Amino acid sequence: MGSQSNYQMKVGNGEFGYVLEDVPHLTDYIPDLATYPNPLRSNPAYSVVKQYFVDMDDSIPQKIVVHKDTPRGVHFRRAGPRQKVYFASDDVRACIVTCGGLCPGLNTVIREIVHSLDYMYGVNQVLGIDGGYRGFYSKNTITLTPKVTNDIHKRGGTILGTSRGGHDTMKIVDSIQDRGINQVYIIGGDGTQKGAAVIYEEIRRRNLKVAVAGIPKTIDNDIPVIDRSFGFDTAVEEAQRAINAAHVEAESAENGIGVVKLMGRYSGFIAMYATLASRDVDCCLIPESPFYLEGECGLFGYIEKKLKENGHMVLVIAEGAGQELLAAEIQNAKNEKDASGNKLLQDVGLWISQRIKDHFAKLPKMPITLKYIDPTYMIRAIPSNASDNVYCTLLAQSAVHGAMAGYTGFTVGLVNGRHTYIPFNRITERQNKVVITDRMWARLLSSTNQPSFLGPKDVKAAKKEEVPPTQLLDDADEKTK
Amino acid sequence: MGSQSNYQMKVGNGEFGYVLEDVPHLTDYIPDLATYPNPLRSNPAYSVVKQYFVDMDDSIPQKIVVHKDTPRGVHFRRAGPRQKVYFASDDVRACIVTCGGLCPGLNTVIREIVHSLDYMYGVNQVLGIDGGYRGFYSKNTITLTPKVTNDIHKRGGTILGTSRGGHDTMKIVDSIQDRGINQVYIIGGDGTQKGAAVIYEEIRRRNLKVAVAGIPKTIDNDIPVIDRSFGFDTAVEEAQRAINAAHVEAESAENGIGVVKLMGRYSGFIAMYATLASRDVDCCLIPESPFYLEGECGLFGYIEKKLKENGHMVLVIAEGAGQELLAAEIQNAKNEKDASGNKLLQDVGLWISQRIKDHFAKLPKMPITLKYIDPTYMIRAIPSNASDNVYCTLLAQSAVHGAMAGYTGFTVGLVNGRHTYIPFNRITERQNKVVITDRMWARLLSSTNQPSFLGPKDVKAAKKEEVPPTQLLDDADEKTK
Amino acid sequence: MGSQSNYQMKVGNGEFGYVLEDVPHLTDYIPDLATYPNPLRSNPAYSVVKQYFVDMDDSIPQKIVVHKDTPRGVHFRRAGPRQKVYFASDDVRACIVTCGGLCPGLNTVIREIVHSLDYMYGVNQVLGIDGGYRGFYSKNTITLTPKVTNDIHKRGGTILGTSRGGHDTMKIVDSIQDRGINQVYIIGGDGTQKGAAVIYEEIRRRNLKVAVAGIPKTIDNDIPVIDRSFGFDTAVEEAQRAINAAHVEAESAENGIGVVKLMGRYSGFIAMYATLASRDVDCCLIPESPFYLEGECGLFGYIEKKLKENGHMVLVIAEGAGQELLAAEIQNAKNEKDASGNKLLQDVGLWISQRIKDHFAKLPKMPITLKYIDPTYMIRAIPSNASDNVYCTLLAQSAVHGAMAGYTGFTVGLVNGRHTYIPFNRITERQNKVVITDRMWARLLSSTNQPSFLGPKDVKAAKKEEVPPTQLLDDADEKTK
Amino acid sequence: MGSQSNYQMKVGNGEFGYVLEDVPHLTDYIPDLATYPNPLRSNPAYSVVKQYFVDMDDSIPQKIVVHKDTPRGVHFRRAGPRQKVYFASDDVRACIVTCGGLCPGLNTVIREIVHSLDYMYGVNQVLGIDGGYRGFYSKNTITLTPKVTNDIHKRGGTILGTSRGGHDTMKIVDSIQDRGINQVYIIGGDGTQKGAAVIYEEIRRRNLKVAVAGIPKTIDNDIPVIDRSFGFDTAVEEAQRAINAAHVEAESAENGIGVVKLMGRYSGFIAMYATLASRDVDCCLIPESPFYLEGECGLFGYIEKKLKENGHMVLVIAEGAGQELLAAEIQNAKNEKDASGNKLLQDVGLWISQRIKDHFAKLPKMPITLKYIDPTYMIRAIPSNASDNVYCTLLAQSAVHGAMAGYTGFTVGLVNGRHTYIPFNRITERQNKVVITDRMWARLLSSTNQPSFLGPKDVKAAKKEEVPPTQLLDDADEKTK
Repeated sequence: MGSQSNYQMKVGNGEFGYVLEDVPHLTDYIPDLATYPNPLRSNPAYSVVKQYFVDMDDSIPQKIVVHKDTPRGVHFRRAGPRQKVYFASDDVRACIVTCGGLCPGLNTVIREIVHSLDYMYGVNQVLGIDGGYRGFYSKNTITLTPKVTNDIHKRGGTILGTSRGGHDTMKIVDSIQDRGINQVYIIGGDGTQKGAAVIYEEIRRRNLKVAVAGIPKTIDNDIPVIDRSFGFDTAVEEAQRAINAAHVEAESAENGIGVVKLMGRYSGFIAMYATLASRDVDCCLIPESPFYLEGECGLFGYIEKKLKENGHMVLVIAEGAGQELLAAEIQNAKNEKDASGNKLLQDVGLWISQRIKDHFAKLPKMPITLKYIDPTYMIRAIPSNASDNVYCTLLAQSAVHGAMAGYTGFTVGLVNGRHTYIPFNRITERQNKVVITDRMWARLLSSTNQPSFLGPKDVKAAKKEEVPPTQLLDDADEKTK
Repeated sequence: MGSQSNYQMKVGNGEFGYVLEDVPHLTDYIPDLATYPNPLRSNPAYSVVKQYFVDMDDSIPQKIVVHKDTPRGVHFRRAGPRQKVYFASDDVRACIVTCGGLCPGLNTVIREIVHSLDYMYGVNQVLGIDGGYRGFYSKNTITLTPKVTNDIHKRGGTILGTSRGGHDTMKIVDSIQDRGINQVYIIGGDGTQKGAAVIYEEIRRRNLKVAVAGIPKTIDNDIPVIDRSFGFDTAVEEAQRAINAAHVEAESAENGIGVVKLMGRYSGFIAMYATLASRDVDCCLIPESPFYLEGECGLFGYIEKKLKENGHMVLVIAEGAGQELLAAEIQNAKNEKDASGNKLLQDVGLWISQRIKDHFAKLPKMPITLKYIDPTYMIRAIPSNASDNVYCTLLAQSAVHGAMAGYTGFTVGLVNGRHTYIPFNRITERQNKVVITDRMWARLLSSTNQPSFLGPKDVKAAKKEEVPPTQLLDDADEKTK
Repeated sequence: MGSQSNYQMKVGNGEFGYVLEDVPHLTDYIPDLATYPNPLRSNPAYSVVKQYFVDMDDSIPQKIVVHKDTPRGVHFRRAGPRQKVYFASDDVRACIVTCGGLCPGLNTVIREIVHSLDYMYGVNQVLGIDGGYRGFYSKNTITLTPKVTNDIHKRGGTILGTSRGGHDTMKIVDSIQDRGINQVYIIGGDGTQKGAAVIYEEIRRRNLKVAVAGIPKTIDNDIPVIDRSFGFDTAVEEAQRAINAAHVEAESAENGIGVVKLMGRYSGFIAMYATLASRDVDCCLIPESPFYLEGECGLFGYIEKKLKENGHMVLVIAEGAGQELLAAEIQNAKNEKDASGNKLLQDVGLWISQRIKDHFAKLPKMPITLKYIDPTYMIRAIPSNASDNVYCTLLAQSAVHGAMAGYTGFTVGLVNGRHTYIPFNRITERQNKVVITDRMWARLLSSTNQPSFLGPKDVKAAKKEEVPPTQLLDDADEKTK
Repeated sequence: MGSQSNYQMKVGNGEFGYVLEDVPHLTDYIPDLATYPNPLRSNPAYSVVKQYFVDMDDSIPQKIVVHKDTPRGVHFRRAGPRQKVYFASDDVRACIVTCGGLCPGLNTVIREIVHSLDYMYGVNQVLGIDGGYRGFYSKNTITLTPKVTNDIHKRGGTILGTSRGGHDTMKIVDSIQDRGINQVYIIGGDGTQKGAAVIYEEIRRRNLKVAVAGIPKTIDNDIPVIDRSFGFDTAVEEAQRAINAAHVEAESAENGIGVVKLMGRYSGFIAMYATLASRDVDCCLIPESPFYLEGECGLFGYIEKKLKENGHMVLVIAEGAGQELLAAEIQNAKNEKDASGNKLLQDVGLWISQRIKDHFAKLPKMPITLKYIDPTYMIRAIPSNASDNVYCTLLAQSAVHGAMAGYTGFTVGLVNGRHTYIPFNRITERQNKVVITDRMWARLLSSTNQPSFLGPKDVKAAKKEEVPPTQLLDDADEKTK
């Protein structure tokens, strides 16, 4: 992705200047492209809009908490319609593909890309690729019209189908060429966006006039730079239902323990926000914060303490929490050739539930009742809520405005409440994580009263952990909302 | 329970007469009890009610589909307030206990017993027993007043706490005597009601003036005689949410399979009704209907067929389905000393999911995506819906009217839409089951198009299965609603 | 409708015999009709069903609470599939029409008629009439297939559209003849079913082999004979939401009054059940129970009392309550030529809210805050819940079985928990009403503690009110559930 | 409020410097106040937090979309805990008051102020003022503890009660002094915050060591400067339900028109966002955008057009829309002495519905069916959703941190995703409004295809309308989210 670095270099000027991390443009490699006035000019809905088109110079700072002498840091290009577009409406042939796991809002994004292309830009050739990246090799595509997509935002899932993997850059770009597609909208997570970057590179190598736009999707909210990912709000809302049920079950039993596993393989945002929103949780375990089971300050000791105090407790665990503990046990199990044991271990919720039961089985005076709830697929599959619906709409419109304006190799994203165009590598080079030395996690610890499970050495290590230079540590806390 | 048989013998007369299966009364073993006019007489709310009090002779037939010459069969005593009561309001000291698993509506029943005793009969000494039967031995009880219980119906679970087992008849009756309790309200399932029957017997043996009333609770709807159990309606409603999620997940993946496990250890009513209500299910497996996995007509063959036709499928399985298959595999696993394998097997949902994955792993041309959802504890823990709220209210009022009128050793229950008093043994002697040779199950098979998994021999056997003589086979279908 | 009386006369025999109120059959006026074996015989789903077909003699008693010497009273013919059908599958040309106001479950009934005709009887010619009765004169019809109707039960409203009135018997029967329709399914309320009766009469007069089946629809539950109407359960559930909001608003203000208007022009079932289910209501006013405003025992006095006691109160009023008071005021307003005043008066909720405000405006020491909620259209428009979904399915199947078996001029209905065929006139000759001298209303009065608003004379009058001879007064209480 | 202007003057330095609009501090008028180390230092939950305390210099820019040479503009002080606090925990005596209309989240804010004071700062003397400002004169207060407030966030409304008006500065400050209160938390809208400003001024005049903190509340989102107000997200979500019902009603009738009135007396944010989220709306009318009824380009003409095209339409109207039209008609009505007519007119939803009906009554060939839904009180009274719960938590914590740190005369607010302290006058001096010459409104017009109702003159006028100098016009669009 060397070519992207060019765009990272574009710099503003002056002592208090800022760095603009720009995105590629079709004219970077195809000179003398024709331009057209933006059709929105003659759209009655936009006729009253003062200063409707985004100024070429508009940018958004990534970092906004400032001291007197803070340098202005990295900026991103502002999303929105431009005065000139690089495609004639009739010539556009767009395609949309959804990849990876389900996430509330996928259908809304699809709907709004189709509607925006049609109502704003008069584009009516839009293809749906069936079943993720591998759908590019299949003969079947789905014709997407405003009518076909009109009510899909009321349904969960994705009408295009989805899959993991199946990415063969050459075959995909061949398919794009063969079908005469010149705008590619790719909705998916980390890996999918990496794939989109490679597709963009290959398209550029072939000198094709094809704009590639990504809409980042991750229910876990683990994409960096952006304020939050679509569907996250809906997921946190729906997670309340499971936590509430766990609380009721726990309260109704003697020494009742409710365990809820929530999404979050590498980051604990859903678990953290659901815990903060619910207030019924006594302990929240996430991948970013290691914990241990035994000993007075360990998890078991804390559970015992809570049961003695309140007679019940609720534990939320993100699916990626405690992986090092699991890994150790799986290794043990392997040595003992206990194949099916491994299967049990693979689900951290089942594992922790079993370990808690095993522990209390040794304490006959404290018979527990443990109920385990895994709401993952009930959360992923619901339609997006109103807030995510509006958000998905704006993401889709930003993507369409960007592609029409000739930008390519970019993803759309909300940065400090403003829609921007971000180079692929900025959102794929690392993952957004809960910073456990930050205020939001402290708020959580304070609200649950759970131990931090950190010894003095861990604290030191955690505080030392490197943080991307463009992001102030102390403002990560409001990142996700 | 020999003494109960006396009550089964009470007979009406005439050629077209009916059998009244009556419940015991305190006067059966304590003669010359004082009676009091029912305080409802002077309650302004009831002043306009014509014929408010239930006629002593009122009864409800268990069987109501009739032919010309059908005998009138078994009747139950109608529930409701009587002209005379056998307790002075100030003398009543009631207690309420909830046992077994959670079920929507427990708090509503508790609330309405407390409110009915107070507002209808002026009784204000009501104790809550904490944590099921074993709470009788504990010192702590919960004082229940209309105010304390006023909003509890809006919460799931039981404010009294619950537990399984812990039944020691002598200690319980000692505790009842020691505390001066003279009305015992017992909310719980099959086993709990058996316990209530034994408590009643012991109370009778000791000649105590203590009325024992049961309110049958089973989310599975597996209690015989009665139309449906409270909470069932709410559970079926909530189960839709999981089925819908499974459907969305399945539809969005290539060869997507959604598996939902629902409650029902011995009977498949929730699975059957949720399937009928949802219409998104392709296969519903219940304990009553054996199935097999392999072969063209087996489950795997059916799944393959559905995937080829529609690209996805949804499977609902009751927790007690396929137990004989599991038992066989567990036996195998034991022989192979695979301990943790057993744990996996114990959950039929995890088991069937694994078996399906194993099967399709052998068919590389048909890669599946299977998502498993177990909504059990999310269903059990929700508050009861409006319909169950009203139902719980009437059950509680019937119990209170019955106890005040001196009846004892009875449970309340809806029979053909009318509230009745039923002897304990009638609801504990067997379990209500889905009759697979009946029309409701045929409707389900017809709606899912799934195979019946029955060979000619099975059909013959199923048709021969004995059915309780008082129940017409062909009306069992509308039993539950 | 004289011809129907023939069917009312069919009598069983013997001293304890019963009266069968039968429904017409095509063979009553077209002799020598060919019959065919029921296709369900060869349907694998039904192959295991023992005694699947309904016995010709099966009947259901309307009255089931009995004393020793109670006569067995009126029975209805049991619904369900018959051994023989009077239509060859290929010859059937069915149509479905929905009339009147929206009600949860309309789409489910439509879906299930279409699916039952197809999957059970191999019928695939089904037309939807567009927009109620008047759609018969229009050229447009909607082709209904299992696929088209597959997901419609998840949506509120009716995909066929609906309207009131527009009934011209001759033109409708002409249209039926012209289109070659031979099964007519009519979903609608009181007036609609009266229309259906007249259509049946005209079809009979013309000697047409056309079966007319009604599915009674009324969100108000005001259809007599049957246990409850579809959609009612869903409506009561949804009404909770409005009552809860009114309660929150009232609680948060000083002397807060929450007023909720619920459906029920002539009967107060929704208001009564919603009140009983919610428990947050202090006063429930229904059409059946007159009330007055002024005086210590009047509504205003009661509100003052409640505000003094609790600081807030919640009032539920059915849309048809207090009509005589409104009529008087409208008359006054007319005399004063206050035209727009009339408009205000027409909505009882706005009227009572205004009257309460006017009253308290005269009591400056008791400033109130009144919030009025009318959730009517939010309730009518939601999809049916699980319980109503299953119920609608059974109603639709009963209708299809009946029409295929050659019955005509009937509606389907649940009587004492069993599905039956009922002559039109029995469900249109009067309306089901809350019996205010009955126990359910007493329960409500007791739960709200509201006054009965009845003087001694009213009580006497109410108790004297004639009650249909076939219905025991004291069992009407459990009628609706 | 002259004294506040001092704080507006505080300026950063340098060519690219910014203006800090600061908030008062107790030390501004009480010199030599003792300080204490922040108790959070010794809180284990915060021990791992690197750089936990907010740097004294941290500030947040109000404007963040920048061009190369954009000046850095106005900044606000960042909210959060400070190293030093000006109150010893044991000395704090806090009070909380809620004023104005209900809004989802009130109870969450109350709960979190109480919990934050207790768990973070060890403060356990917190009083609830009963029923708004006028509760200050009443003897009754509500003792607020973590336990009492533990579950209140799951309920709608406010446990403190609320009222409008009742503000007598002298009496309130007397009451504050008499009770020894030294921290005052005031939750309420525009008028309430103006009242808070005056209370602060009087407290300052009396030289009292009392911190006054405002938490701005407005379901309409019409408070300027801040990103959004709490409860707004929940309100938009809940509004979907009403819009959906209106859509179902409209679709099911011939020429069906669904009218939904939503909150928004002076600003149309809820109507706009609900429309954008729902996608079922054909016309959205808000206070900011004038419209007219008659003529081809008027509302009636547009409705006719939509009915002809689709057979139905949905209209959303904010309660403050079309006030100039209503005012004119009320004037007419007054002249005609039609008193009750006025009442009708006061509700814009009833008014527009009546006017539409009157219009179509003149077009007999186009008989319409209009259904009007006013969900206002059902929206206001629900509990806050997960997103608002987390937001309310952070607002409450910011307020507590600020008061403990000695700031006063401030409100808390989210600015560009960061929590800040804002001087009262900045949020009360004007109202936040939908800018109809901005992109968000253009998006809405584009999504509904409704006319802008603006003639060329209006457009010119709208574009000229003054916009606060510190706010870039073209970024107002993402203001609310």
